[in-house]
Amino acid sequence: MSATLAAEAAPIAQAAGPHVAPLMGAVEELLGEIAAGTAPQLAPHGAATIAAGGKRLRPLLVLVAAGAPEPGRDTASLVRAAAAVELVHSATLVHDDVLDDAPMRRGAPTVYASAGRAMATCAGDQLFARAFSLLVQTGRPDEIRALSDAGSGLARGELLQRADAWDATVTLDRYLLRCELKTARLFEAACALGVMESGRADADPTVLGSFGRRIGLAFQLLDDVLDVSGPVERTGKHRGTDLLDGTVTLPFIVARERDPQLAALDPRTITTPQQAEEVCDAIAATGALDAAREQALELVAGARRDIPADLPEAQRRALDLVATGVVARYA
Amino acid sequence: MSATLAAEAAPIAQAAGPHVAPLMGAVEELLGEIAAGTAPQLAPHGAATIAAGGKRLRPLLVLVAAGAPEPGRDTASLVRAAAAVELVHSATLVHDDVLDDAPMRRGAPTVYASAGRAMATCAGDQLFARAFSLLVQTGRPDEIRALSDAGSGLARGELLQRADAWDATVTLDRYLLRCELKTARLFEAACALGVMESGRADADPTVLGSFGRRIGLAFQLLDDVLDVSGPVERTGKHRGTDLLDGTVTLPFIVARERDPQLAALDPRTITTPQQAEEVCDAIAATGALDAAREQALELVAGARRDIPADLPEAQRRALDLVATGVVARYA
Repeated sequence: MSATLAAEAAPIAQAAGPHVAPLMGAVEELLGEIAAGTAPQLAPHGAATIAAGGKRLRPLLVLVAAGAPEPGRDTASLVRAAAAVELVHSATLVHDDVLDDAPMRRGAPTVYASAGRAMATCAGDQLFARAFSLLVQTGRPDEIRALSDAGSGLARGELLQRADAWDATVTLDRYLLRCELKTARLFEAACALGVMESGRADADPTVLGSFGRRIGLAFQLLDDVLDVSGPVERTGKHRGTDLLDGTVTLPFIVARERDPQLAALDPRTITTPQQAEEVCDAIAATGALDAAREQALELVAGARRDIPADLPEAQRRALDLVATGVVARYA
Repeated sequence: MSATLAAEAAPIAQAAGPHVAPLMGAVEELLGEIAAGTAPQLAPHGAATIAAGGKRLRPLLVLVAAGAPEPGRDTASLVRAAAAVELVHSATLVHDDVLDDAPMRRGAPTVYASAGRAMATCAGDQLFARAFSLLVQTGRPDEIRALSDAGSGLARGELLQRADAWDATVTLDRYLLRCELKTARLFEAACALGVMESGRADADPTVLGSFGRRIGLAFQLLDDVLDVSGPVERTGKHRGTDLLDGTVTLPFIVARERDPQLAALDPRTITTPQQAEEVCDAIAATGALDAAREQALELVAGARRDIPADLPEAQRRALDLVATGVVARYA
């Protein structure tokens, strides 16, 4: 097992088979090279933010969706596809940190904090462009389409979220669309890319794509639940940061139907972490967190049903572990 | 002649042949659709900044480099390629305006000014992603590679420029590298894309690519000369804005070798438009502007020599007009 494998990824990689850990190592190496070559001007902290850390869930999904490569098959383009997906994700994080004035991410200073707004904006742009430079080396237009559509969706989701900021009346449909764009599409693309890279001409990328989409949606829903439920030791931030940022998510949307006081709340009046915690408590008191978790669990159950029965046993088990892992985030 | 054709583009389109104006009209229509669909949340001013205005020199280069399409040939993918190049350019402008706190561009409020920093950053990201979504419809990996390499270069060039800010000792080589990345690569890609879209299997994209690269370099050099020389009526901004932003360009690099007072100047001490004008006068007094223009003219002459003799007469004339147009910017 490669030393670079994130703790959460290790059991999935192990279940998928002995081919995954070395491939993840190769992805990590490629990301490191790109981070170093992309922005030699950035402070070491900045490059580290791009290169290291994170659960690497998206590239792992690419590898697991691809299945074990046939003996002798060149895996270079599979590794590039996995790295390209992570680069798009990293580019988004770097830009998000700029927009959120975020000093830290994953325990390290953000590119924004260490190199400034301008450098971080450029660095994000460059990571995004590099993702396509990398992927195009495989020469498969359907892969590039999958990633560019996901990238376009990510930006649109981010845009919608900013447009919806401080709007306590945002609809459930609108919220789900944002989750779809911000998170689910890239998970979907990761799985589809894996299938496309598998070399199995008969495999339909949309089947595991749907698996990825549901997992991504569940992932985002549970992330939004965690922001309200805590505990702080799990999330590394105080409860209610989304509310403080003006981002209205599923727990609040469910809770406002159950508690007239919450329905009447103007998010702009929440200005201190203490107030945010109190609103989190009020949301939890309505049972909205359980309802939101339930919705996420249904998505995960649907994703499980998406796993084709004719896949090799190890691959099915690894995909199932990905689904379990998403649920386990709130256990 | 289409009403949407920019004044500077009209003579080039006319020389290239009657096919160009309707194709440019189609490019404009596609850009309009994308601008409208990309960011419905943006204020009309913002959408207008993306959709309208500009010289459209880059998409025009794509069309002129492609030459007249054979009768009956589908031009949809050529139009998409031309629009994709302009989208990458637009994405860069939208982000540049964020980083420069720019209120206006081309006489209209910037996306940044009308919709804010967050929306403009997301909008730029989305335009960039849409460029690849669009181009991938042609299904040619070499085209996607050309555009993603250019996009990556643009971001790196922007990054280098920010890293070099306020550095009066920046070398000529470094300055030329920045011009190469920031401007020349996208001009090069525009020409290469046109050739790839021409359907002429024997045509080598690197030949007109080299033409585009030299034209792009000359374009940037002359732009930097104009910033020092003015006049204000031509540029729409006071002289020396680059210096006020801390951007050291060719005129200063040449002049500091000729005037010890300029060599000793710390750009940070230039804080008012009046001071900037005085430095511009000092630069002009050394003859540096003529030297910089001379260097640009040599590049244009080299670009002219790049035009293959075996191209149709109309296409050669149009390419020559592009080269002339770049020189005419300072005449």
